[in-house]
Parts: sequence; structure tokens; C-alpha cells
Amino acid sequence: MKLAIKRKQLNEQVSEFTTNRLSVYLRCLNALGAAGVRTVSSQTLAQQFHLNAAQIRKDLAYFGEFGVRGVGYYVNGLKRHLRQILGLERKLKVAILGAGNLGLALADYPGFRQEGFQIVALFDTVTAKVGQQSRAGVPIFDIKDLRRIAAREKIGIAVIAVPVESAQHVVNQVVAAGIKAILNFSPGTLRAPEGVKLKSVDLTVSLESLSFYLAREEE
Amino acid sequence: MKLAIKRKQLNEQVSEFTTNRLSVYLRCLNALGAAGVRTVSSQTLAQQFHLNAAQIRKDLAYFGEFGVRGVGYYVNGLKRHLRQILGLERKLKVAILGAGNLGLALADYPGFRQEGFQIVALFDTVTAKVGQQSRAGVPIFDIKDLRRIAAREKIGIAVIAVPVESAQHVVNQVVAAGIKAILNFSPGTLRAPEGVKLKSVDLTVSLESLSFYLAREEE
Repeated sequence: MKLAIKRKQLNEQVSEFTTNRLSVYLRCLNALGAAGVRTVSSQTLAQQFHLNAAQIRKDLAYFGEFGVRGVGYYVNGLKRHLRQILGLERKLKVAILGAGNLGLALADYPGFRQEGFQIVALFDTVTAKVGQQSRAGVPIFDIKDLRRIAAREKIGIAVIAVPVESAQHVVNQVVAAGIKAILNFSPGTLRAPEGVKLKSVDLTVSLESLSFYLAREEE
Repeated sequence: MKLAIKRKQLNEQVSEFTTNRLSVYLRCLNALGAAGVRTVSSQTLAQQFHLNAAQIRKDLAYFGEFGVRGVGYYVNGLKRHLRQILGLERKLKVAILGAGNLGLALADYPGFRQEGFQIVALFDTVTAKVGQQSRAGVPIFDIKDLRRIAAREKIGIAVIAVPVESAQHVVNQVVAAGIKAILNFSPGTLRAPEGVKLKSVDLTVSLESLSFYLAREEE
């Protein structure tokens, strides 16, 4: 039993690192496709985007995608396959909790829309904001209506963009509304019950890697 | 010559993945420290935060940090060491380019301040915003004054939070102002000259890993 749990955790962990890479490959293929490139080898892909060629081949082979000898990968075919693996062929509806600066910025973030995510609602507790909308036209609802709107709109993912003090409370409301995947931008540690996937984005990590770079340059 | 360039790229790549992990370890140690935990083994660290124990040992050994047999790592000592490796013992000054929703959200993001980053200025082209400040009190300057203020304040890192159309132009202005490290939140591909480190954050990657999770759950 204990081993089964461990294996499950391990699988989830592996898949998270791997899906992050698949997502990066998709980004690169989009750029190549836009530039009119039709085929690409793992070496070229690795060189152009500072990735690891062996890792690319391993990741793609795991999902049954094999390059063609002497050709590499077909850009459009591989894009389609990656989008399918990542579940992007269907439109996923996203709600953003918190209509402050961060929530409003995320609601209008162009990258989400490009990959087929549909930001359908913002939620806030501030009455003055309810009934307003983001610049791109995402409506702001009262968080009291979360459960009803989540069911009606079939919302798949909730994004947490509220202050750290209220983040856990909002996560609980999201879980009660039946949403199974949560992307958290609040800096604290949050808990979600089993069966709900909670992923946190820590923006400090990127800044620290620049700090490391600067510290070495100064040596 | 070619080999030397390749090796340089490889080193940079390895260090970026590694520093990202160091930064994650530091986040975990902060949480443990706040909870009053004094020592931690690589296994416990791995289990609690869904990391890889062997990878932790390898990463830390690379920077000369060895755990104590039967004890593991001293939380405070390791925190101090990681902060030193990441160059966080000195206050790094950060400017944010773009005082829209994203720029304002980043200016007030509590995680940055916690790790010693000092957000000293926002810059925008919109005259009505200049002279205003973010909720946490970061002043908004005219982007025309970037070079002068960057020199006066000794700004180390610039964060790009402008629309994709103007992002490359703003990067050029940041480079001209002598700033050597750039964190980009705009979705497009940007170029910076050699000697300037440009790191892009793509928020879509996190959302896609949740999409993958949901697609598998539905199977």
C-alpha cells in the first residue's frame, strides 16, 4: 500500500516535469511554424532554444512520437500531437479568483488565449468590482456565485490571484465548487484535498536565477 | 572555438536549471524554518515538497554543501549557504518596465521583497501615470528617465511587463541604460546582446501542465 502511494507520487512528479518540457517544445514549434519551418531535428531544436537533444528524443519517444531518419520531426504534425497529449485540442475554461492587478493582468494575458484556454470569469468579493469587466472583456462576478457559474460554464481550472491571507479560504471555495485543477500565484503554502491538482507558480524563482547570474559576473 | 562556445552554452543551461532548483530548495527551507524545524534530511525534504532526494544531494554537493550523517542538513545553515550561492545576501534593486496591471501586480508581489529584492521603480510612457505610485509605494517614472535613474539607483534587474508590440523596443532601452539582467513576462521572443542575461517567464506552461492532468483524469 505504502509503495503504491509512493509510486503514484513519483509518477505525478515525473509527469509534471515532463509536461512542462512538452509545453516548452510546443512553444518552440509554434515559433518555428510561424517562421515557415516545416521539419526540424532534435539537434536543431535543442540548439535554437537551448534545450537538450537527447532529452527531447526521450520525452517524445515516451509518447510514441518518433522522428523520421534524415528528416527529423514534421513541425505541424508534432505540434498537433503535443497539443493532443497536453489536452489542448478541446477548449478549457478558466476562472480567475481575485480581480486585483494580478487577476486582471492574467485575465488579459495573450498567451493563454493563443493555446486555446478560455478565460470566462473573474471573481472578487469587492462589490464595486462586480459587474465590471477586464480590458479584454472578461466579466467580474461575485465570489458568492462561484459554485453556480462554475457548474453552468463547466470551468476546468481556477487561477488563484488573491492576497496570501485569503488564499486558502478561496481554494476551499474553489474545491467546494467542484473545480479539479488550481493554479496558484499566491506566495504561501496551500492545501487541496486528494483528487484536486494544485500547482503553484513562484515568481521569485526566476528573479533568483538572475541574481545568481549577476553574482557570478561580479566575481 | 566551436566547442568552447558549445561548452559555454551547456554550462549556462545547466546552471539555469540548477539555480531554479536551488531557489525551490530555499523556498522549502524557509517554510521549514518558519515551522521551527532545525534539521532535515534530503529524504524528508524530497517527500514533503515532492522533490528528488538524489538530485538534492547532488545539487548541494556541487556547491560544497554536505549533509551531516544521521542529522541531514541544518536548516538555517543551509538557508544561509543557498542565499549566498544565489547572491541574495546583498539587496538587488529591480525596476519594472510597464505600469499596467501586470507591472503594478509585480511591483507589489510580496515574494520579491521577502527574498531581499528591492523594487525601486516602475517606468511607463503614459504621462498620466508618471508621478503616481503602486499600492505598496513604488514610484512610477517616465521611461525617458530610465538611463538616469538606473545609474543613480544602481538598478541590477529590469522586469519587462509591457505589451508584446513594444517589448523589444523597451528591452533595447533597458540595455542602453546599462542593465545586465532582464526578466521578461511578455509572450513574444526577444533578443538581447551578449553580456546581458535575458530570461523569459511563460505563464502558459503552468496552465498546460494542468490541462494534461485534466485530460488524463477524464480518460
